[in-house]
Amino acid sequence: MGGQFGEITVAMQYLFQGWNCRGNEKYRDMLLDIGTEEIAHVEMLATMIAQLLDSAPVETQENAAEDPVLGAVMGGMNPQHIIVSGLGAQPTDSSGYPWNSRYTIASGNLLADFRANLNAESQGRLQVVRLYESTTDQGVRDMLSFLIARDTMHQNQWMAAIEELEQQQSVVVPSTFPKEKEKQEVAYSFMNFSEGTQSQTGRWASGTTMDNQSTFEYDGNPKPMGQVPSLHPAPPYVHDTPLFPDNL
Amino acid sequence: MGGQFGEITVAMQYLFQGWNCRGNEKYRDMLLDIGTEEIAHVEMLATMIAQLLDSAPVETQENAAEDPVLGAVMGGMNPQHIIVSGLGAQPTDSSGYPWNSRYTIASGNLLADFRANLNAESQGRLQVVRLYESTTDQGVRDMLSFLIARDTMHQNQWMAAIEELEQQQSVVVPSTFPKEKEKQEVAYSFMNFSEGTQSQTGRWASGTTMDNQSTFEYDGNPKPMGQVPSLHPAPPYVHDTPLFPDNL
Amino acid sequence: MGGQFGEITVAMQYLFQGWNCRGNEKYRDMLLDIGTEEIAHVEMLATMIAQLLDSAPVETQENAAEDPVLGAVMGGMNPQHIIVSGLGAQPTDSSGYPWNSRYTIASGNLLADFRANLNAESQGRLQVVRLYESTTDQGVRDMLSFLIARDTMHQNQWMAAIEELEQQQSVVVPSTFPKEKEKQEVAYSFMNFSEGTQSQTGRWASGTTMDNQSTFEYDGNPKPMGQVPSLHPAPPYVHDTPLFPDNL
Amino acid sequence: MGGQFGEITVAMQYLFQGWNCRGNEKYRDMLLDIGTEEIAHVEMLATMIAQLLDSAPVETQENAAEDPVLGAVMGGMNPQHIIVSGLGAQPTDSSGYPWNSRYTIASGNLLADFRANLNAESQGRLQVVRLYESTTDQGVRDMLSFLIARDTMHQNQWMAAIEELEQQQSVVVPSTFPKEKEKQEVAYSFMNFSEGTQSQTGRWASGTTMDNQSTFEYDGNPKPMGQVPSLHPAPPYVHDTPLFPDNL
Amino acid sequence: MGGQFGEITVAMQYLFQGWNCRGNEKYRDMLLDIGTEEIAHVEMLATMIAQLLDSAPVETQENAAEDPVLGAVMGGMNPQHIIVSGLGAQPTDSSGYPWNSRYTIASGNLLADFRANLNAESQGRLQVVRLYESTTDQGVRDMLSFLIARDTMHQNQWMAAIEELEQQQSVVVPSTFPKEKEKQEVAYSFMNFSEGTQSQTGRWASGTTMDNQSTFEYDGNPKPMGQVPSLHPAPPYVHDTPLFPDNL
Amino acid sequence: MGGQFGEITVAMQYLFQGWNCRGNEKYRDMLLDIGTEEIAHVEMLATMIAQLLDSAPVETQENAAEDPVLGAVMGGMNPQHIIVSGLGAQPTDSSGYPWNSRYTIASGNLLADFRANLNAESQGRLQVVRLYESTTDQGVRDMLSFLIARDTMHQNQWMAAIEELEQQQSVVVPSTFPKEKEKQEVAYSFMNFSEGTQSQTGRWASGTTMDNQSTFEYDGNPKPMGQVPSLHPAPPYVHDTPLFPDNL
Repeated sequence: MGGQFGEITVAMQYLFQGWNCRGNEKYRDMLLDIGTEEIAHVEMLATMIAQLLDSAPVETQENAAEDPVLGAVMGGMNPQHIIVSGLGAQPTDSSGYPWNSRYTIASGNLLADFRANLNAESQGRLQVVRLYESTTDQGVRDMLSFLIARDTMHQNQWMAAIEELEQQQSVVVPSTFPKEKEKQEVAYSFMNFSEGTQSQTGRWASGTTMDNQSTFEYDGNPKPMGQVPSLHPAPPYVHDTPLFPDNL
Repeated sequence: MGGQFGEITVAMQYLFQGWNCRGNEKYRDMLLDIGTEEIAHVEMLATMIAQLLDSAPVETQENAAEDPVLGAVMGGMNPQHIIVSGLGAQPTDSSGYPWNSRYTIASGNLLADFRANLNAESQGRLQVVRLYESTTDQGVRDMLSFLIARDTMHQNQWMAAIEELEQQQSVVVPSTFPKEKEKQEVAYSFMNFSEGTQSQTGRWASGTTMDNQSTFEYDGNPKPMGQVPSLHPAPPYVHDTPLFPDNL
Repeated sequence: MGGQFGEITVAMQYLFQGWNCRGNEKYRDMLLDIGTEEIAHVEMLATMIAQLLDSAPVETQENAAEDPVLGAVMGGMNPQHIIVSGLGAQPTDSSGYPWNSRYTIASGNLLADFRANLNAESQGRLQVVRLYESTTDQGVRDMLSFLIARDTMHQNQWMAAIEELEQQQSVVVPSTFPKEKEKQEVAYSFMNFSEGTQSQTGRWASGTTMDNQSTFEYDGNPKPMGQVPSLHPAPPYVHDTPLFPDNL
Repeated sequence: MGGQFGEITVAMQYLFQGWNCRGNEKYRDMLLDIGTEEIAHVEMLATMIAQLLDSAPVETQENAAEDPVLGAVMGGMNPQHIIVSGLGAQPTDSSGYPWNSRYTIASGNLLADFRANLNAESQGRLQVVRLYESTTDQGVRDMLSFLIARDTMHQNQWMAAIEELEQQQSVVVPSTFPKEKEKQEVAYSFMNFSEGTQSQTGRWASGTTMDNQSTFEYDGNPKPMGQVPSLHPAPPYVHDTPLFPDNL
Repeated sequence: MGGQFGEITVAMQYLFQGWNCRGNEKYRDMLLDIGTEEIAHVEMLATMIAQLLDSAPVETQENAAEDPVLGAVMGGMNPQHIIVSGLGAQPTDSSGYPWNSRYTIASGNLLADFRANLNAESQGRLQVVRLYESTTDQGVRDMLSFLIARDTMHQNQWMAAIEELEQQQSVVVPSTFPKEKEKQEVAYSFMNFSEGTQSQTGRWASGTTMDNQSTFEYDGNPKPMGQVPSLHPAPPYVHDTPLFPDNL
Repeated sequence: MGGQFGEITVAMQYLFQGWNCRGNEKYRDMLLDIGTEEIAHVEMLATMIAQLLDSAPVETQENAAEDPVLGAVMGGMNPQHIIVSGLGAQPTDSSGYPWNSRYTIASGNLLADFRANLNAESQGRLQVVRLYESTTDQGVRDMLSFLIARDTMHQNQWMAAIEELEQQQSVVVPSTFPKEKEKQEVAYSFMNFSEGTQSQTGRWASGTTMDNQSTFEYDGNPKPMGQVPSLHPAPPYVHDTPLFPDNL
């Protein structure tokens, strides 16, 4: 619930994207719709966790820790559920690490952000499916199958919104930066920097680029372009290591 | 450099995705190629920052803090550059917050992760473009135009890899979870949870779904499905608030 | 907004306290009322911040950084508002540190938690008043005077709820732990551990204790009760420092 | 020990409140007395933990992890106690999350801070009582009964100090902000924002307010006061999403 | 792997020290050599972890959690390895806490930094030895014995580099600060601040100081030098606690 | 004050090392002496900061932000000093990042930990010297010259204690791990992994090793020792990317 792609992240992410939305009311409204839905999901999970913890004797608590799904759903099955929250849900991830707002993305560029949202729903559905696989509790599975279905919708939703935006702009974010200002000689070449050349067979190494602006090239042996970096000695008041005679 | 979508994040993210890659050597090799390239970008930025700081007197340091691009490129232009790192680059973001590994994503599912990568390159190019816009230093702009071009390639690269995977699997992640196990009645409906109905006009509210499995529905007035949650009182050894007579 | 006592904290804190509430529906309903109100306050602030940032040229951005109230209200006026969020609000505090869920408290014991809430509203109103004092922008002041008034209500509200609970239980949390199980000889004495004895003149050093169970004592020269701690050497497989001959 | 309300937090919190105390020597001295006492409590716990770990074979270590009290007291019973600290105590919480200084509160306003302190001692005593309940080790229980008794005193102490301050100032923090500057029409009304109206029966919804300045009102159907927010499009150099024709 | 002294820390630390190196090419080259080696160690560990997780059924996962070496090597054996990373390695420590860049040190002063590096390799080898001791898996032990040997080299390497620098400069960092500017009367005396006087028998309490500049003194009863601190009342606009009459 | 090598870190670090000390009373007593001294340094700094902030009007606050020494000494001169702490000191670093306990080191092996302490005092004195250089305030310089002198003593002290321990054990930590268990063929060779061979001229590439156990070797062209890693496909329940036909 409180992990990087948990319900708290998407709820906050969609609401902040909506509140920061400048114009484009259709998207603003959609973002606030789904952001509000995610708050409801947080409540669903918090309630389910509290119910799972209901009047569970300490031993059971500990056994739960050995069932990855309960442990994970409970947001970190550790002594803190007894000591700190008194059998209540906590907004942390399954290792007890607190949720933090660096997880949320709201850049002001909707195409960039909708790709963040599609990723969040992809990672999120993957995780919920893994939870489903690792439990046999029918009540938990039933609730998870609801979340899995909603994530199916949300992935479809973001793909639809991305398609709309890509048709109005271009596929490269941001679409408004003038092409001539980027170093075009390296804008479409794949560079081989590790051992092995299997990557040469990929779609990204030949054929038309996805933005239909050029053709993919494969550079099997990229050369360094910059000169060897050289730094001046630090000024005395910084008290870095003094230069040694053999470096003067 | 050390922000959520900085070079350190993508370098670590691509390397961990590659090292954790199970089979599919083509993708493993590609991930290690680009991960290695990103390490070189970290070095480029660290060197540029150190050069910008070269023998700069304290006053200049402070002025730099007023130029958002220098401030941001320098990863948090604060007194720490003089006091802590002695005019060296630091792996932090522009508010001095340290880079941390919760920024990296390697789920084991390549389609999910390539969407994370496309998002990272979209957010990253957007940020570099904003840096470009806010500085007039020609040396900095020149270096940024190189990074902007590489991010153009990287966005194209991930779109190409995503297309490959979506053709082999389906577009919903994970593609291997049996459809009948999810609550299908809510798998394709858009729910209106905020004031306003502009969201009804979006592509996500009607027409064929992106996975070609169904049709988008719009639910203007969604009803709660679950029952009102009720929790048992906590066991005495937890020392929660005792029930009041009027609640017994 | 994203600080330790910002609107995000209280919104999450009240909602989690409500969702984890076991019985006592009156409190559960009240917690969800005010938690929902706080989400609206987050929206108000996010919108105000985005409006303050509206079409502000870069220079103005930077000047804003020199006005503590704008800086603080904007949740960390640093280059990230241009580079990362594209002139949108961010859920961070005024030094750019992200909000995190360790700020929220939901212990399951309502008297303990209502004291946390009274503290949060006290710190929060104090901070908003300081913001009010440090700006002269009438629009900002007008909005802040609304938040100040609501915090007046919220402090009154928590004091009222605390009074109710203290009358039903006792004033010491938790009230359900048997008195004879605590070391009563030190349960009501104030111990002087620093230089100076001005603390002896305080209400806490004499007179009836607040729980009406005893009388405050003042111990001007407390004696250590435990024996000098002694630890066994670590087992060899831990490879701690070996004991030196003169310690054997 | 290293949790949000552990001994490290209160030790640091009381010392910083004392060091930052401007005038009011009686409170400064009292804060340094109790802050110093809390450092002694940190030593007590660190020693007890190290003794519990004394020459414990690995297996025992692991079993300990299954006893919530040992696990929690030990500040996160995880492999780190063997690998990192060599059977020594660590300043972390029971999920291994490090203590950090955002837990401490020192606002400069003593009434606000004493409410923080009363909350900390309430949460702290609650947690120690829960530890007591979940262990049967007589040595641990004996030591915990000492801490429980001291927390009884500390709760009484802060209530006494709060009473003193509330009598000199008023109960609303800060007491020095002129009443006419806050939006008084919303300063004393309870607003119903969630389903259900049980909250109407609470002390906070009718009767004289706790500051004796007014009467509690209950607003069963609060109306939004602000106008619908509208934001300008972002300036071009920010490269947010361009406005679509149908929004112009 | 992702702990404070794990391979990620030293890799980043050595690379940043090298990239920020101003002159002294011999050290720059050496730092980049060893930094690159550490990246290879990260790959070795990531691969070993993924292999350990290879097709392990859930139960086995959980059992692993009870073997401190596997748990620790795996960087936090918790449900996240199944739910989040799909049986892949994660850049976290053994309690699931993410690696962060505040762990890395690059001050610009090589003698200071080489001492940081010697410490990192000392803590690191100690931890790997403890891992070795707590597992009986021959494959793991074989790999660890390689890392232990490399840490032996790295400790020797940093001691050699430190010796070189201490001979060119002096042993006190930084060596370039003029002696007369420090308060010399307290520059070489050991002060007894805790009960007991065993510390008087140490090498640091008598004899020539290590920098050959003076003689160690032992001050058994240090006197406070500063005056009692006194602070002015805060200005009204800060709304701190007002001064009470008896403090005027 | 609240940075990685600030007074809070060393105070906590020395106290925890002392409290966890098993036997060797001479070191335990010494650690508690110096740990207690560092607490006094925290008080000194907190008081100095509060005095610097004394009745400073807002403007002055802001100017201070432009003086790196005041900014840094004040632990992050940002709006929080007015809004949050009411002109009081805060336990954060100069970018407002909170102090956290992952900064402290107490491994149970004193030689390892004393190297950590020597590093902390080296980084710490370097930072205080840089503060001294960047201010012209005579009162601040006077106080800093006291801290600089104490750090001179503390560096000498740890070097003395390290010499004692290295004479009783050996210089490699831990000294108790049997040599034959490490892969000795790589225990003393320096490996060239980056471009350039200047590192070959260093003391670490030839001559007797610092532990007098062997001779340094230089490997100009190290060969990979392990086999190419290969991982099994993930089990189906993890829902990683399925293997593609061309990988079967």
